[in-house]
Amino acid sequence: MNKHLNLGLFGFGCVGQGLYDVLQQSQSFTADIKKIVVKHRNKPRKIDISHFAFEKEGVLGRDDLNVVVELIDNSEEALALVTEAMNKKWDVVTANKKLIAENFEFLYKLAQEKDVALLYEGAVAGGIPILRNLEEYYDNELLSRVSGIINGSSNYILTKMEKEKAEYTAVVKQAQELGFAEIDPWLDVAGYDAKFKLVILVVHAFGIILKPEQILNLGINNVTDFDIRYAAEKEKRVKLIATAFKDGDKLKAYVLPHLVTKENPFYFIYNENNAVEVEGAFSDKQLFTGKGAGSYPTGSAVLSDISALSYHYRYEFKKLQKNLNGNGSRKLQFDTNFDLTVYIRYNNEAELKTLDIKETIEQYLSPKTKYIIARVGFESLFKLMDRENKLFVCVV
Amino acid sequence: MNKHLNLGLFGFGCVGQGLYDVLQQSQSFTADIKKIVVKHRNKPRKIDISHFAFEKEGVLGRDDLNVVVELIDNSEEALALVTEAMNKKWDVVTANKKLIAENFEFLYKLAQEKDVALLYEGAVAGGIPILRNLEEYYDNELLSRVSGIINGSSNYILTKMEKEKAEYTAVVKQAQELGFAEIDPWLDVAGYDAKFKLVILVVHAFGIILKPEQILNLGINNVTDFDIRYAAEKEKRVKLIATAFKDGDKLKAYVLPHLVTKENPFYFIYNENNAVEVEGAFSDKQLFTGKGAGSYPTGSAVLSDISALSYHYRYEFKKLQKNLNGNGSRKLQFDTNFDLTVYIRYNNEAELKTLDIKETIEQYLSPKTKYIIARVGFESLFKLMDRENKLFVCVV
Repeated sequence: MNKHLNLGLFGFGCVGQGLYDVLQQSQSFTADIKKIVVKHRNKPRKIDISHFAFEKEGVLGRDDLNVVVELIDNSEEALALVTEAMNKKWDVVTANKKLIAENFEFLYKLAQEKDVALLYEGAVAGGIPILRNLEEYYDNELLSRVSGIINGSSNYILTKMEKEKAEYTAVVKQAQELGFAEIDPWLDVAGYDAKFKLVILVVHAFGIILKPEQILNLGINNVTDFDIRYAAEKEKRVKLIATAFKDGDKLKAYVLPHLVTKENPFYFIYNENNAVEVEGAFSDKQLFTGKGAGSYPTGSAVLSDISALSYHYRYEFKKLQKNLNGNGSRKLQFDTNFDLTVYIRYNNEAELKTLDIKETIEQYLSPKTKYIIARVGFESLFKLMDRENKLFVCVV
Repeated sequence: MNKHLNLGLFGFGCVGQGLYDVLQQSQSFTADIKKIVVKHRNKPRKIDISHFAFEKEGVLGRDDLNVVVELIDNSEEALALVTEAMNKKWDVVTANKKLIAENFEFLYKLAQEKDVALLYEGAVAGGIPILRNLEEYYDNELLSRVSGIINGSSNYILTKMEKEKAEYTAVVKQAQELGFAEIDPWLDVAGYDAKFKLVILVVHAFGIILKPEQILNLGINNVTDFDIRYAAEKEKRVKLIATAFKDGDKLKAYVLPHLVTKENPFYFIYNENNAVEVEGAFSDKQLFTGKGAGSYPTGSAVLSDISALSYHYRYEFKKLQKNLNGNGSRKLQFDTNFDLTVYIRYNNEAELKTLDIKETIEQYLSPKTKYIIARVGFESLFKLMDRENKLFVCVV
């Protein structure tokens, strides 16, 4: 009844090694890692070299596998590998959020066409089983909102800035040294990583496929000690939150820093931890918290996907199918045409020019720092998605 | 592909009405409530009397149903109804923790024999989908601990006592007036309700069927303002926690008040909220929080079970089957033969006599209050499960 799994593994970084360790100790189902494809032949590794191959054929050229586990960084390469595996009618497990978010429709259709499973619980919020829950448990249309702190690096930086009263650049440097931030932390701190995850959450929560470029993401890359103190004086905290919610028959979704109060459970999410809140019309709010990344939490999520394959589990995409078939009970339309009230800290008036400011509610001017709280046309914020932008924007 | 559900409903109290409201607004699957059996003919109800019957035959005598939803208080009556429904090869959804905990083995076997589904997500922690997660997601043997604040009334009382510096009896009275505590709150405050839920958690987490009477439960019925202040002075809080965890090849499980620090996420669970923490060898700790009870959260959990029936979902009891078949990777043995270090507040020495105190670590004596912190033989604590007991015991 249970499927015996013969795995080919791509990548043996932090998550791959975590998975290997976990699989060695798991005896509840049998999964043999037949071969691991890695790039660098001479890197020292803690298991014997006979386990490794150095070309993709080491896995894709075999005929004794039924699952590929893809754990490499590069999403273009990953796409090629995963496509080839599915074409061979092998199931695929991946934790690559960029791969899934950027190619969702293609991969979804390919998996259907080839009649294979494609699982990626580890791609969103590490060990927190949020996709499986959205898929299986919150499968009725009463779900109204999914929000989360789903980028560990940004949350680590914000926590340290507040706790140590340190400036952004110093904290980023420290985070990089500790391995909590990448050499180029842009994808994390500017909200792209969170956005890829949000694309995936939206599919499983609301059955709508969005392209990453449709979703606004502004991050914490311009946050300063001033902003952190501003929040603290109001007994609030700055948190980078990805959110998607229904507003009538519209769906709104974005990644933005938010000022949150103590009444908001995200206020208490510290360091590299993740949290996802699910809100239903009737179930009230459910909060899932846990480690969002790292070798073992993500390895464990990948393991759980592999284990699910052993009993033939697949995402059913019930909500998506309902929307695609046109019989969703309420046709949700993705909407970007609305106003948002935000705190904007700036250096000079010229920086505000591109924004569609409808109403200025508060204004603060000093020689060193200026901010406004204003109602702005949401779509004008897209212009700030640029490394050159110096404004810090935060939902109040 | 989806099963059309024709429901018979027993009970139209707080959860039943919540479910009815929720079903009216749910259009993602079709479930018709054909008839609702209630006890009292003349109670005013917000839907037409034609929906109701007043004898069980109003549901069990029909031949056009395939699901019974059981939402009555009395667990003996519920057992008879549920048994009869399963004998008719109908699926059953219930939120009755006592029914499930006291009759687990019987009901499990009957469901297998009759080839029907028996779902009860609403029985544990209301809207928090913990059973489904233990069943589907944490299905490998690396799970090491499940703990929770799973009795809302007790947590409400503890929160109010601390916040309002009020005595236990005054707060219980207030809780009763607000509907957060029963007229006889014993089952809640003495930990029985939490124990029934723990029995269910243990099945789905560890695949072991325990009888309620095998599990120790001591509650907060003897807690005083002194205990709350004692905790606060040490920057701790008293929380009633149900826990089950592996210790080598032993499984330990009990419901006891615990002194928790700020590092423990249960510290921050307020009022009638519930929280469940799942700890795995590799996934670290995952915390699920949400409303544990009430009309809508529980109604929504029941709805989710009903929705799951529409696509033929059943608990697979993978861990239980592995244990029953004798091929569990590590045979877990339930263990009560160990020592526990606890805070015990008492009035006179005589009260301590029944306890197997191995070592007294601290002792405090004053004319008004006395307590010890001591290592005690766990099994001797069972003698305190009595309305006559006046000791307050709390894990330190």
